[in-house]
This record gives sequence, structure tokens and C-alpha cells, in this order.
Amino acid sequence: MRIALLVFDNLTALDAVGPYEVLSRLPGAELRLVGKEVGVKRTDTGALGLEADLALSELPDPDVLLVPGGAGSRPLMSDRDVLDWVRSAHQGSTWTTSVCTGALVLGAAGILQGKRATTHWAYLDRLRELGAEPVSERVVEDGKVITAAGVSAGIDMALGLAARIAGEQVAHAIQLGIEYDPQPPFDSGSPAKAHPNVIELVRGAEGSRPT
Amino acid sequence: MRIALLVFDNLTALDAVGPYEVLSRLPGAELRLVGKEVGVKRTDTGALGLEADLALSELPDPDVLLVPGGAGSRPLMSDRDVLDWVRSAHQGSTWTTSVCTGALVLGAAGILQGKRATTHWAYLDRLRELGAEPVSERVVEDGKVITAAGVSAGIDMALGLAARIAGEQVAHAIQLGIEYDPQPPFDSGSPAKAHPNVIELVRGAEGSRPT
Repeated sequence: MRIALLVFDNLTALDAVGPYEVLSRLPGAELRLVGKEVGVKRTDTGALGLEADLALSELPDPDVLLVPGGAGSRPLMSDRDVLDWVRSAHQGSTWTTSVCTGALVLGAAGILQGKRATTHWAYLDRLRELGAEPVSERVVEDGKVITAAGVSAGIDMALGLAARIAGEQVAHAIQLGIEYDPQPPFDSGSPAKAHPNVIELVRGAEGSRPT
Repeated sequence: MRIALLVFDNLTALDAVGPYEVLSRLPGAELRLVGKEVGVKRTDTGALGLEADLALSELPDPDVLLVPGGAGSRPLMSDRDVLDWVRSAHQGSTWTTSVCTGALVLGAAGILQGKRATTHWAYLDRLRELGAEPVSERVVEDGKVITAAGVSAGIDMALGLAARIAGEQVAHAIQLGIEYDPQPPFDSGSPAKAHPNVIELVRGAEGSRPT
């Protein structure tokens, strides 16, 4: 089970590392961080570096493709090398997945055409321009394409995917291993729950530093 | 607000990246990944490299200290350079925090003596040997020391800490920004909820690859 996790400068770290922490624990998983070039990619805050261990050409045919988001996903939407790789990897993949605005890259590659999909709540409208049907759910599955909502949603997506790949008992064991029994101290994690002032605050910030 | 996130070989990535994703979004935060030596540290699965940008001596006096866990935390428990740095950083810190088995490093540094603390559920007993009072809660605060349970608990801990540092509205905005509205597909994230077979499976795996 070869899993390709695309990384790039200005990605959002948790988009990638949430699913990594789940999927890398699958028995027989061979998860690799893949970049347009190998080397360290700095995240959108600049404060964290994640290493791309393989170039795109070194893993053209993963079983699972995962595209995280972050401001750095926007330039990828017009990067022919990346889009060609995404399209080609998708052709042979068992599962093609995204977290947050990683969905916009799948969309730019034409993969979401006519499909139900989700992304970070502040970018949901963008999916329609890319031919998808935006769905305001945490994880959306359409055929072999699974898209997750913003940032932390990748953990939920990956646990469901782990069960599809290796069965529920393995997924339960992974959930217990990472003690994923979430107890957020506040209930402000979606625009349906957050105070309007908080929503406006985040929308404003997204304008300057897209997630 | 200078935040030091200790990284080392064989750490668990999500222990570090969960809190990073929350705390790096605090207004005025200057979060740095600090290692015994600068350079890329490989995680416990070997599949992911995180870069330490500063050596310990370059950030001796952070406002917030965060120690993640993973198998690689065990050698740190007898590493004089690291323990000296942890003790010294703790002396001047506003908050000293850990995720998962990072608590064992705080304990080995003598910081948990007589304190209520938590860690990954499979390692809770170890805290007593280090002079702490083990508490089976997701986040435990005792004075300026905050310890979180296993791996994913660092996200919950960091959100609470964000509110303490910058107020609840900022914490709510961060939660909404990372769309942290968790919807795990299964309810197997703690030993109180998981099936006994799953608990045994994880305990067995912890023996060979401690979290």
C-alpha cells in the first residue's frame, strides 16, 4: 500500500500530518512525502519545515494519493508538472484524497468534475467553479475520491479510509493508539457553531493568509 | 511570545504538529522547532522528517515550552543536555507543556514532582515513578505545567492554552480557522471506550513501538 502525500511550500502542516499519523500506522503502509523537488518545504506560517523525500517522478503510481491544502495549494492549481502528476496518479490510484484547500488542486486537475466534494468552509464556493458540487460535510466520498473539510478534518477522513483499507478493528486500534477522543474546550469549529464576529474575523484573516 | 517546540528523532509527528497548528496562529507568536542539533529529525515511523531550526542553546528562555512524545522521548530521559535545557527553560517559562510521552521527559527533569499530570494512557503508570500523580484526563493543568494525553490530545490542550494566552475569542477563531469540529467515524479513542481486544492489540504494539 503505497501512499503519496504531496508537500509543497506554504502548505498547512496539520492537513498533511493528521492523515500521516493515521495512515502511516496501517499494516504494510509505505507512506512517502512527495514534492515537486525533494527537500524541506516550509509551511504557511514559515515556522515549520517538512521534508519531501521523493520527487514526483519517483512515485508516479501510488495506491493512495493525498493532497493537503494551505496558501501554497493555489500556485499548484496552474502548475502543469504537479497537475499532470496528480491526474496520472489518480488514474491508477485506489483512493484519491484531499484535505482542506487541497481539493482545489484536485479540482484544477479536473478530477472533481461532476463530483460531490468538500474543502475548508471559507473556500467551498470555489469548488463550483472547478466543476464540483460543493457539500458542506466533514468528509465527502464520491467514487474513489474522498475530500475532507478544513485542516483537522483530515484526521477524521483518514480514520474512515483506514477502515476501508484494513478493516474497522485496525482503524479502532489506530484511533486508540493516537488517543483520538477529541474534547475541544470550545465549540467554535464550524461556521454553523461559531459566533458571527468570530466568523468575520477568520474570513478577514483568510483574505491575507489563506488556509 | 516565544514558543519552543522540542523535536528529536523518533518523535510522534502529530504530538508536535497539532499544537503547532494552534499556537503558531496566536497573534505575535514566534514558534520555533528546537533540537539538540539543528537539522531534520525523522519521526517514529521513519516516514516523515521535521526540521529543527534552532539548537537548544539558541532558545534557552522561551515563554512557552512544549515537549512532544514518541519512542524518541525515552532516550531524552537520560540525556543531560536536554534535561538541563528543559529545567532551565521551565524556570523562566510562563507555561511548560507536554503531549503524550513528552510528559516522561518533564518528569525525568524533575518538573512533575508532586504535580498532577497525564500522558498517553498506556504510559500513565510511569508518571508515578517520576514523582507525579497520574491523572486520567485529556488535559491536566497544575500551576504553570500543562500535560496532555496521547498524540491528538495536544490539539485540545493547545486550544485551551491559546485562550489562556490571548483570550477566548482568539481561541475560537483559531478553532474555526482549523475547522476543528471533530467527527471521528468511530468511538474507540480511549481505553474506556475501546473494545478489550483493541486495547490488547495496541498495548502489544506499544511494546514494540512506544508512542
